[in-house]
Amino acid sequence: MPRPPVPPALADFLEHPNPAVIATADRDGSPHTAATWYLWDDGRALVNMDATRKRLQYLRDDPRVSLTVVGRDDWYDQVTLRGRAVGIEDDEDLAGIDRLARHYTGSAYARRGQRRVNAWIEVEWWYGWTGGQPWRG
Amino acid sequence: MPRPPVPPALADFLEHPNPAVIATADRDGSPHTAATWYLWDDGRALVNMDATRKRLQYLRDDPRVSLTVVGRDDWYDQVTLRGRAVGIEDDEDLAGIDRLARHYTGSAYARRGQRRVNAWIEVEWWYGWTGGQPWRG
Repeated sequence: MPRPPVPPALADFLEHPNPAVIATADRDGSPHTAATWYLWDDGRALVNMDATRKRLQYLRDDPRVSLTVVGRDDWYDQVTLRGRAVGIEDDEDLAGIDRLARHYTGSAYARRGQRRVNAWIEVEWWYGWTGGQPWRG
Repeated sequence: MPRPPVPPALADFLEHPNPAVIATADRDGSPHTAATWYLWDDGRALVNMDATRKRLQYLRDDPRVSLTVVGRDDWYDQVTLRGRAVGIEDDEDLAGIDRLARHYTGSAYARRGQRRVNAWIEVEWWYGWTGGQPWRG
């Protein structure tokens, strides 16, 4: 599997507000998936979670993650980023979730009363497909 | 999280050829995700893999999987199925991948020379969202 940085065409793809699914490991080691917003920023992916999710504690215990992004127009364009969640910190002023919400919806995040947490995915490996061929590193 | 069976409206949703991402655990316990075809059949999900994938051996060793399905028209409709892969068997005549290919593309699978393997996901838990609300069991 290629190491980062991802090639420019793949970075362009990742900068769109695409559907994505993140996997983490639960305490018992079973994989856990959830659809997620992400934001590609300078070679890392910002994600944001509800602070009450059990998943958050598991992620602190085991920061290994895998994020599969599919094209919003053609889901056969896809990339998987494997790495670690770092910078897991309270999103005090909701600035993180607002960045994500604006990216995906054009508006700030609506539910202002929530406690949210940011994390950054540092990519260790990536692989993917576009037009029926592997993305080239 | 609700136990199966899934409610009828969710079964209807799952019967469409939706984008999906499957997570398995690698040998070192790290989560591994990949976009996948699936086919919902009588409360289970058929998936199919290239027989050469390392993921297949890991899945035999640890059959726990998590599959997140997003709506082909609106990816905010989504469901996650957690369970186990059973019936991991060679797709001798490519009947399994053909079922999946016909469901998604309308045609039989093109690459006839591949060795493929079927697996069925038996659902132990599920949860999801539709129209901004949880799917109800």
